[in-house]
Amino acid sequence: MDGFADLDFAKLDLTREERTGFPEVVFCSGKEDQFLCDIYDRLYKENGQVFGTRATKEQFDLIRAKFPDAVYDPVSRILKIPGEKSLELIGNIAVCTAGTADIKVAEEAAQTAEFFGSKVTRIYDIGVAGIHRLLSRTDDIRKANAVIAVAGMEGALPSVIGGLVKVPVIAVPTSVGYGASFEGLSALLTMINSCANGISVVNIDNGYGAGYIATQINRLAEGIK
Amino acid sequence: MDGFADLDFAKLDLTREERTGFPEVVFCSGKEDQFLCDIYDRLYKENGQVFGTRATKEQFDLIRAKFPDAVYDPVSRILKIPGEKSLELIGNIAVCTAGTADIKVAEEAAQTAEFFGSKVTRIYDIGVAGIHRLLSRTDDIRKANAVIAVAGMEGALPSVIGGLVKVPVIAVPTSVGYGASFEGLSALLTMINSCANGISVVNIDNGYGAGYIATQINRLAEGIK
Amino acid sequence: MDGFADLDFAKLDLTREERTGFPEVVFCSGKEDQFLCDIYDRLYKENGQVFGTRATKEQFDLIRAKFPDAVYDPVSRILKIPGEKSLELIGNIAVCTAGTADIKVAEEAAQTAEFFGSKVTRIYDIGVAGIHRLLSRTDDIRKANAVIAVAGMEGALPSVIGGLVKVPVIAVPTSVGYGASFEGLSALLTMINSCANGISVVNIDNGYGAGYIATQINRLAEGIK
Amino acid sequence: MDGFADLDFAKLDLTREERTGFPEVVFCSGKEDQFLCDIYDRLYKENGQVFGTRATKEQFDLIRAKFPDAVYDPVSRILKIPGEKSLELIGNIAVCTAGTADIKVAEEAAQTAEFFGSKVTRIYDIGVAGIHRLLSRTDDIRKANAVIAVAGMEGALPSVIGGLVKVPVIAVPTSVGYGASFEGLSALLTMINSCANGISVVNIDNGYGAGYIATQINRLAEGIK
Amino acid sequence: MDGFADLDFAKLDLTREERTGFPEVVFCSGKEDQFLCDIYDRLYKENGQVFGTRATKEQFDLIRAKFPDAVYDPVSRILKIPGEKSLELIGNIAVCTAGTADIKVAEEAAQTAEFFGSKVTRIYDIGVAGIHRLLSRTDDIRKANAVIAVAGMEGALPSVIGGLVKVPVIAVPTSVGYGASFEGLSALLTMINSCANGISVVNIDNGYGAGYIATQINRLAEGIK
Amino acid sequence: MDGFADLDFAKLDLTREERTGFPEVVFCSGKEDQFLCDIYDRLYKENGQVFGTRATKEQFDLIRAKFPDAVYDPVSRILKIPGEKSLELIGNIAVCTAGTADIKVAEEAAQTAEFFGSKVTRIYDIGVAGIHRLLSRTDDIRKANAVIAVAGMEGALPSVIGGLVKVPVIAVPTSVGYGASFEGLSALLTMINSCANGISVVNIDNGYGAGYIATQINRLAEGIK
Amino acid sequence: MDGFADLDFAKLDLTREERTGFPEVVFCSGKEDQFLCDIYDRLYKENGQVFGTRATKEQFDLIRAKFPDAVYDPVSRILKIPGEKSLELIGNIAVCTAGTADIKVAEEAAQTAEFFGSKVTRIYDIGVAGIHRLLSRTDDIRKANAVIAVAGMEGALPSVIGGLVKVPVIAVPTSVGYGASFEGLSALLTMINSCANGISVVNIDNGYGAGYIATQINRLAEGIK
Amino acid sequence: MDGFADLDFAKLDLTREERTGFPEVVFCSGKEDQFLCDIYDRLYKENGQVFGTRATKEQFDLIRAKFPDAVYDPVSRILKIPGEKSLELIGNIAVCTAGTADIKVAEEAAQTAEFFGSKVTRIYDIGVAGIHRLLSRTDDIRKANAVIAVAGMEGALPSVIGGLVKVPVIAVPTSVGYGASFEGLSALLTMINSCANGISVVNIDNGYGAGYIATQINRLAEGIK
Repeated sequence: MDGFADLDFAKLDLTREERTGFPEVVFCSGKEDQFLCDIYDRLYKENGQVFGTRATKEQFDLIRAKFPDAVYDPVSRILKIPGEKSLELIGNIAVCTAGTADIKVAEEAAQTAEFFGSKVTRIYDIGVAGIHRLLSRTDDIRKANAVIAVAGMEGALPSVIGGLVKVPVIAVPTSVGYGASFEGLSALLTMINSCANGISVVNIDNGYGAGYIATQINRLAEGIK
Repeated sequence: MDGFADLDFAKLDLTREERTGFPEVVFCSGKEDQFLCDIYDRLYKENGQVFGTRATKEQFDLIRAKFPDAVYDPVSRILKIPGEKSLELIGNIAVCTAGTADIKVAEEAAQTAEFFGSKVTRIYDIGVAGIHRLLSRTDDIRKANAVIAVAGMEGALPSVIGGLVKVPVIAVPTSVGYGASFEGLSALLTMINSCANGISVVNIDNGYGAGYIATQINRLAEGIK
Repeated sequence: MDGFADLDFAKLDLTREERTGFPEVVFCSGKEDQFLCDIYDRLYKENGQVFGTRATKEQFDLIRAKFPDAVYDPVSRILKIPGEKSLELIGNIAVCTAGTADIKVAEEAAQTAEFFGSKVTRIYDIGVAGIHRLLSRTDDIRKANAVIAVAGMEGALPSVIGGLVKVPVIAVPTSVGYGASFEGLSALLTMINSCANGISVVNIDNGYGAGYIATQINRLAEGIK
Repeated sequence: MDGFADLDFAKLDLTREERTGFPEVVFCSGKEDQFLCDIYDRLYKENGQVFGTRATKEQFDLIRAKFPDAVYDPVSRILKIPGEKSLELIGNIAVCTAGTADIKVAEEAAQTAEFFGSKVTRIYDIGVAGIHRLLSRTDDIRKANAVIAVAGMEGALPSVIGGLVKVPVIAVPTSVGYGASFEGLSALLTMINSCANGISVVNIDNGYGAGYIATQINRLAEGIK
Repeated sequence: MDGFADLDFAKLDLTREERTGFPEVVFCSGKEDQFLCDIYDRLYKENGQVFGTRATKEQFDLIRAKFPDAVYDPVSRILKIPGEKSLELIGNIAVCTAGTADIKVAEEAAQTAEFFGSKVTRIYDIGVAGIHRLLSRTDDIRKANAVIAVAGMEGALPSVIGGLVKVPVIAVPTSVGYGASFEGLSALLTMINSCANGISVVNIDNGYGAGYIATQINRLAEGIK
Repeated sequence: MDGFADLDFAKLDLTREERTGFPEVVFCSGKEDQFLCDIYDRLYKENGQVFGTRATKEQFDLIRAKFPDAVYDPVSRILKIPGEKSLELIGNIAVCTAGTADIKVAEEAAQTAEFFGSKVTRIYDIGVAGIHRLLSRTDDIRKANAVIAVAGMEGALPSVIGGLVKVPVIAVPTSVGYGASFEGLSALLTMINSCANGISVVNIDNGYGAGYIATQINRLAEGIK
Repeated sequence: MDGFADLDFAKLDLTREERTGFPEVVFCSGKEDQFLCDIYDRLYKENGQVFGTRATKEQFDLIRAKFPDAVYDPVSRILKIPGEKSLELIGNIAVCTAGTADIKVAEEAAQTAEFFGSKVTRIYDIGVAGIHRLLSRTDDIRKANAVIAVAGMEGALPSVIGGLVKVPVIAVPTSVGYGASFEGLSALLTMINSCANGISVVNIDNGYGAGYIATQINRLAEGIK
Repeated sequence: MDGFADLDFAKLDLTREERTGFPEVVFCSGKEDQFLCDIYDRLYKENGQVFGTRATKEQFDLIRAKFPDAVYDPVSRILKIPGEKSLELIGNIAVCTAGTADIKVAEEAAQTAEFFGSKVTRIYDIGVAGIHRLLSRTDDIRKANAVIAVAGMEGALPSVIGGLVKVPVIAVPTSVGYGASFEGLSALLTMINSCANGISVVNIDNGYGAGYIATQINRLAEGIK
């Protein structure tokens, strides 16, 4: 036993939770039907629950045929088979967006963090072009152990938040925009070049990654190592 | 006479002021010594004054040898031979910077605007990572007929200002930064993608261009067409 | 009351007109149906009219089902619910295009400017490869308080216009072209590097932004601050 | 008093420590001599110590002339005036590099973290092309509250570390490399696209930023908010 | 006879096998139906077998109508008309992938190598974020005469393998990923910048090319020149 | 009469033939149906023939409904209404392609040249990876007054031809390729950097432009100015 | 005898003139001293004259030490050893520049064309931002057999000229500019995307290449094949 | 003992030769003096010889002070301390260049291969713009077990060679060129997109890497595993 389950086409990483503190999650996008079913099947047997991101409605139908308890959220595109016992959520992560179009990425982040056991405060549509919206929520943002700032177009939100809080800000560029937004590249560059301190960046539209990191920080802040 | 002075190597545009409302200005960078002297000479004869940008200290020495009245500002790199009669400055242009390193570009903008007859209010080092600095100056910014917002690194300043004022914001990306700032490209993309309204953008470090446009707007606002 | 209406998913910016002189406008592209309806509904209640850009025919059908007065222009893709009292248009903005394929962006600019109260002169298909077409309209262009120059492919139109007028030229690159036009990036770079004075640039295909800025200038020129 | 000291050319952010938990730090690169002296002078008066990054040997000479206690490290390019009382370092941050050429960025990170009160474990030259070097240090890396992974060229180090630890990995791309490394851009892209979880990225060569974020996490892990 | 068959629209390279040791292969993507049929027809007559890559299911139907023996593999998208006599496979090529989504490119490589007479060992889903998976297969990889390492996203797999083996590693970036993976460009840059020795790179998704080169090396290692 | 026909949405350039020696040609791609019909109608009235590029089958059906003589070639996508009198073709232009997939661009070039009165020699599928194919046709290529070299992927064909002939080579990069071909950008860069003399380059897939330039040269060579 | 002189480090192409109609020219930039001397020496023996581009003043001193007749032009950076008999210049090539900073590239083009036997008309500083300068010279431009249009910054000059003449326009982008000119890339893209007909493009600052092509055309127009 | 020597700042990889068949080589560029000395010292003690690439003349002086036997080649920039016993060279690697400016990279490749025990045939200045030079050497190239093709500018050499030989071609793009060569990026893209088979690519100017891979293949071909 080498620490993974060999499904012929895939090697499920069964010691991941032990090594990293988190169970394996399924990136559904582009997976062929049979592969996806086998993976959900095997992970459900191992863990009693499965959490997948970037799922389509068609993939939901496929999984639901076998697992009637499967749940799908069309906004975040998360497809999960919930476990039996509910988790008590701890700490506090603030998930902020610049606009309404960024919400689908923010929900991937928020629901990922919740799946991993973090309490989440959602603060949406507070982009910098109407700075009073952000300022009116400063106190709420400051209560979090970690902040996720989601923004497309020029991606300036993390810089302003970074100057207001003591905790790390995970910046998530989104592909929201048009023209010279280059599918999120411009927002990514903005965030990487932030003159504010405490900002680090994940891939374009990578809500999952931000939810994961914020949970790592949230756990540390709540005394879990 | 075709409306320009043919210096063999160059065609000085003598009807420019009539057509555009502004006299010809010299872009000194990279001009060879003899060319530069000839151009200053000819323009001085035509207009009684000369205004040049991107000049070096060496070019200043060169011009001063012939025109003892020449003045050079090492921050803005403007090299001018002032005219005899002083101009009465009109209206109000706010020139703002995100950081102190942006001041050299801002001064090119401010002094250009002053040369063309505009009153200028300088508001420096009010970048978005310390948003209270910007907010404390909102009233001053709102008094202007046009705003010039100069920023390097992530270049987020124009977006925040754009949400606070009624007049156009001329955004000037600067080459200030390092790594993924790509000599100002990242700031340029940020500004082009601004979700705020009223933002238009000029080339990286193009303080002169911003001062010119702001003066066009300032003149219109003061009833000069 | 924090100056915005919290629709749960969105924060409508109700003090925007007071702060910036312009009411909130809806960017329809990619908005989900229910969100779009709620926003049109709320803005109509606040302002007695709604103006949206980048709308699809399907979105028009959706809004028209609730607001029979809604009007849709397939060229500019503007979807609006007109107000009761008609606005008297002031001043003069020249909207120019290089080719016929640029007209859809130009119309977004022109109709935006008209919605905000500006008189507009349309001068289409005067690209630089047939320079006599542009020169024959110079007098009309010179009458404007601001010029919007819309061009795809190599995007050279603003440079030529900039040398002919006294007022600011808002350059709008379009995604018209193929191959190395890179969906408008080449035109954007051309405009940013313009050797003409008085040129500032907005995002690719951003007719709305250009109409907004031109109106800001037009108002100032007509004595409105 | 608006929360900042107005040095005419700069606005020192005196409430930053209260807002963010960290004092202001000086980015020395490109600052003119007189500006730099004034800033060190003012910050020393306010805080009793000053910490600057990206300083040159010449800037050290300049500052030392006034503050004989100033200390300069040519590897990290940090120029500081130490405070009187020594800080007790807490927690544990692992700073890892792929190669020896990455050490100068790693030292900026490590010394920044130490200045802000974090204990640091240095683990250098463990790049993935000799994977046994990294594996032999896994236990040391796993003891940290946060990991900083510094790498140039292909920048693969953070991905491997991310699969081995429970805590966040701050990835720092460096400009080490040649040809298609594009001054660190390739390493940055590698890190942003990491298939490992828990990786977030800062700007190329931004050791300071990584040291700051790691300290934020380290503090939270040690019960300081 | 100039060494090629002139099909009017194409010149089939009939001396290729003599010059290069390999018969001509058909790149099916984008070929028009009649062209494709003519090429398969002619090559079958010349060689008694045909091997095509990047074929669609529709192209398979087209070819099968004429050649009932045609075989199509939807994963690798290889469409072939097998020859009569089966080839004895020689040597050993290891084909490795980072993830399961890279398998379709890996299969193009593996089946190409097999078509050209090489024995292949498939080792899939051993990406660096779970390094124990790769390490558990080191012995198998070390037995090969050449290694093909297929990876998308950050593309770090070849660097780790390169440090473990004595033979050349052909790195194949794939378009697997999203956001800043830029359709495989990021993985390509990672591989080109590899700090490991023995790594050379082919085009994104170019499994065929990797299978070809690995066979060249495998033949040389088995004493065939 | 300003030298153009004002169709409200378009200004047809009626003096173009006089100024440039060539009649106006219609770029059909993306033109709306009514616009296209009006343009064909007006140009037919002016010139007795119309020549359009980048037309779709649907546009052909549209035009044919009104002009039964209209002719459409699905390979080159040229849609024309032939004139009554046939043109005698002069001189000689060699149109070469690297592969078969480049033929559609080559045909746009060849048929454009023929429409403008040039005799054309087609030499297809002579890419540099099988150099004997090109060398066997050297004599035919050398007979031309101008050479058009069409190539995708690495685009090396023009460099080799440029070293063999005395006349200008118009290089046309095509979007043929995949992965790092970046839709023809790589081929364009290859051609722009050619170490051979006599190579100049047009836009990606711009067969029309190449046919136009080659005809200009062919006419000069045949004594027509 | 293989048609080239093997200098050990280089193979001088002695049959080039026969194949292409032009003698070999030396690209001096970056050549080591001894190599350069040997090449000038050998070519002088073969041809009785040598023509080199991109030479430095130091290289001139080196060559002059051996060949006292050597001539160097610091503007074009051409270093030549003239032949004994003077060439009668034929035809007419117009070399145009947008600005004065483009002259050094234009002179490389002009002097190359003259060396190859073409008569040249120089028309400098006629950029599009002062369109009357260009229009006043239209008749002169129209007299040429070929036009070379040299421009940096936004590079719009070729588009306007292309609409005015019957002969090919060779567009030469220059590295003149700053910021988003990206060392000439923006001008190159402008020219490649030109909506005017008859424009083809050479590499940035490649005056030599343009002079070569224009001479090819000029010869054909004058009846030389 | 973990298989490496820990020099505090570096971990020398002492088991590399066992794992990969090649001893550790020093990349001298940018290494600080003391580090470089320590590394040469330690490696000499371990292996009785040292081989370093990208060394400067200054580094040579430094090493020679301690190791009088040190040898430096200014063309390849290789700095080595030769071992006592001379190696018998085996097999055959052809190292080809397109131009003379590519020789410095080619020599890094050739001397690296020789250091690792391979016999090398140098074939320089056979670029594709004078294709007869390459064709005259085809037989020599065909004798090699592996070919290294070094080219800057448009980088077309590997494509032509790839069509002529049976063995792998290692393509090395160089930074030779100007303008749109983008320091070797264009040549790299050309090579990655090669339509010839058997081409794989290493980093720009990476002669060392090519020499290493070619030696791996050469050893396999000579029966060494």
